[in-house]
Amino acid sequence: FQSPANPFVSDSSNSLFVDIESLQRQIDELSTFSDTPAPTVTRILFSDKDVLARKYIKSIMCQLGLSVREDAVGNIFARWEGYEAELPAVATGSHIDAIPYSGKYDGVVGVLGALEAISVLKRSGFQPKRSLEVILFTSEEPTRFGISCLGSRLLVGSEQLSEGLKEAVDGQNTSFLDAARSAGYAEDQEDNLFSSVFLKKGHYFAFLELHIEQGPILEEEGVSIGIVTAIAAPASIKVDFEGGGGHAGAVLMPARNDAGLAAAELALAVERHVLASGSVDSVGTIGILELHPGAVNSIPSKSHLEIDTRDIDEERRNKIVSGIHQSAVEIAERRRVKLSSFKIVNQDPPASSDELVINAMEMVSQKLNLTHKLMISRAYHDSLFMARISRMGMIFIPCFKGFSHKPEEYASPVDIANGVKVLALTLAKLSLE
Amino acid sequence: FQSPANPFVSDSSNSLFVDIESLQRQIDELSTFSDTPAPTVTRILFSDKDVLARKYIKSIMCQLGLSVREDAVGNIFARWEGYEAELPAVATGSHIDAIPYSGKYDGVVGVLGALEAISVLKRSGFQPKRSLEVILFTSEEPTRFGISCLGSRLLVGSEQLSEGLKEAVDGQNTSFLDAARSAGYAEDQEDNLFSSVFLKKGHYFAFLELHIEQGPILEEEGVSIGIVTAIAAPASIKVDFEGGGGHAGAVLMPARNDAGLAAAELALAVERHVLASGSVDSVGTIGILELHPGAVNSIPSKSHLEIDTRDIDEERRNKIVSGIHQSAVEIAERRRVKLSSFKIVNQDPPASSDELVINAMEMVSQKLNLTHKLMISRAYHDSLFMARISRMGMIFIPCFKGFSHKPEEYASPVDIANGVKVLALTLAKLSLE
Ligand SMILES: [Mn+2]
Ligand SMILES: [Mn+2]
Ligand SMILES: [Mn+2]
Ligand SMILES: [Mn+2]
Repeated sequence: FQSPANPFVSDSSNSLFVDIESLQRQIDELSTFSDTPAPTVTRILFSDKDVLARKYIKSIMCQLGLSVREDAVGNIFARWEGYEAELPAVATGSHIDAIPYSGKYDGVVGVLGALEAISVLKRSGFQPKRSLEVILFTSEEPTRFGISCLGSRLLVGSEQLSEGLKEAVDGQNTSFLDAARSAGYAEDQEDNLFSSVFLKKGHYFAFLELHIEQGPILEEEGVSIGIVTAIAAPASIKVDFEGGGGHAGAVLMPARNDAGLAAAELALAVERHVLASGSVDSVGTIGILELHPGAVNSIPSKSHLEIDTRDIDEERRNKIVSGIHQSAVEIAERRRVKLSSFKIVNQDPPASSDELVINAMEMVSQKLNLTHKLMISRAYHDSLFMARISRMGMIFIPCFKGFSHKPEEYASPVDIANGVKVLALTLAKLSLE
Repeated sequence: FQSPANPFVSDSSNSLFVDIESLQRQIDELSTFSDTPAPTVTRILFSDKDVLARKYIKSIMCQLGLSVREDAVGNIFARWEGYEAELPAVATGSHIDAIPYSGKYDGVVGVLGALEAISVLKRSGFQPKRSLEVILFTSEEPTRFGISCLGSRLLVGSEQLSEGLKEAVDGQNTSFLDAARSAGYAEDQEDNLFSSVFLKKGHYFAFLELHIEQGPILEEEGVSIGIVTAIAAPASIKVDFEGGGGHAGAVLMPARNDAGLAAAELALAVERHVLASGSVDSVGTIGILELHPGAVNSIPSKSHLEIDTRDIDEERRNKIVSGIHQSAVEIAERRRVKLSSFKIVNQDPPASSDELVINAMEMVSQKLNLTHKLMISRAYHDSLFMARISRMGMIFIPCFKGFSHKPEEYASPVDIANGVKVLALTLAKLSLE
């Protein structure tokens, strides 16, 4: 680790200069590319604002002297060539898409922070042995096409997704292909359009992601750095009920089969199944519940729910998914509505961080005199998928009250700078492995 | 009743010629003015399609030689001057707005059917003594501004509505004034803009409305004509909950205060309170339930419900409304969410039909050899409000399985023709009173 060729790594780690003012300015500026007013941020995949935000990121990449590549789904790669460029590179990155009415730190800290880490290393005179890459992943959030971690999921070789994307449409019936093309991607007409994105196992030596914790633990315990050992396993489900509908005045209660009340019951059943697991690590959420036709004087004839459930224990989470399915069937039967669809959109296994990477992050944190702890990530990240083709590790920093996915989301400049320092030194260390 | 001046009324009632083919063609043509594809109909107040549909109705009114007047909120009046024109007129009418994804008969039968009734009377050589008027009411449905029977409610002198309309906005934050102006109404800048719509008690001698039953009774019992004796009393409520929101993975269950689950619980509580009334005449519906921000991986931080509850017994219905309020308070407290709004939008008293009008409708039905029965209207209608300033009566015709507010809504040409005959003869009879 103490390489004579890199005095920076051995000597100056305590005087590392993170230009936090510039980084904060970039975070603030990026947040203005939003479809909803500040302090909320809404940046949906391939929207005009997303395209502008991508341009902004690419301009920073270019200013840093990195070579920029984009793939067919819009993953963006910025490379700093190492002096042993034939070795698998060390990569880091995150996402900049933002769910409706959310905040400005989720994902963004791991993209702009990674570019600042490269900047730090460049200013210090460091020369990488393995190349370093910063990745901006397409659509970590499932907002537009219902597919979470779309870019990283495809990158690590999902054949199913590669095929599925050709037919995928959003809520306005715009195809993924048209949306991607309008943003300047997916322009080739070839058969392997999306499988061209796949990267082989071993393509990267290691992948790191810097991210706000999105939970309250680091802040509550006054710890600066969270070193993630595992990422919880998410499953998401779409459910549709169909009933008879009708006039809210004229159809008497015994004659009703109300698809909306079936949805309300299922929402509460999800909560019940999650609580019945007995573990605080089980969570379940109904973030989307829509009624059709959606008129005050009309009995809902259709309802649509989207359910998210996660656990660090895959088996326990799968048991919750089965429980939800049983409830949906039972509710439909009892209320005489049709369970017209129960679709498990994804049911991913959890991922573990790599020992080598964990050790490097721990060593760097100690060196920097930053308090740190090993912890679990309850939110999923692109790292969940990158772990399938590469060593993986994540760096968490504290965030205000653990808030995320809402405008109150906040991480302090000091905490962000600490995260960038740990990322920079870990990148440097792994680059020399 | 057997006026020598009107041989038609006495002699030819069995050979009354309703041009049902033309009427059916008009009903079909009107249904094409829709924002959603056939067989669904969506015609929202002051939308482009509503404006086109109004033009279509006015052209028929003109072709019949009626004089057309429009008031500041877009109620349309077509008058056939009687030979004692100074007497209060006899009026009939209904609405042509259609809730999203509904059918083509609700309201429409009472507007186009009324114009065909006038046509029938004109063809027969009948001369009215009291003038006859056909009214198209603005926005019977509450779809756009959340106000049911907007046109008739204002017509009968609601000061509260007259003031409220100046501030009213729709879901897209378009003001009622702007919407009305874009449709060619509300153009005066005067203080009494909306109170100019008010009509005094006694302005009309009687008001009649022809409407599909929107319930299954007439069809099931094989009865041709329903004579409405009373209209059930509707109340509608808007409820908002606010919770903490947050990330669907990171916020553990004990730390949540989920506004969406509060809404789901309240929806089920509405059903419970309605069933607890013990009467089949109590109904309650949650037609609108919206979650914010509406992302699969975000805990709902806000929820909005719109509740409709009705009964033929006002006191019993009011008890249900109180029960719903108690539940909303209790749920908010238990789930640690804020009940940020509980607004009773309207809580109208029921209305009774007038004896004179009921008797006239019964006599006419007998004369026409049409089976008929006295019944209650569980749906509300503009008649509910017209009853405040005029004698009122309603004619129901059978509809397929009682379906309404959905595309399967259907009334047969024979049943429509029967309704038009009863309406025509009742108008003629009351005109001569
Ligand atoms: Mn996120
Ligand atoms: Mn994220
Ligand atoms: Mn209606
Ligand atoms: Mn109606």
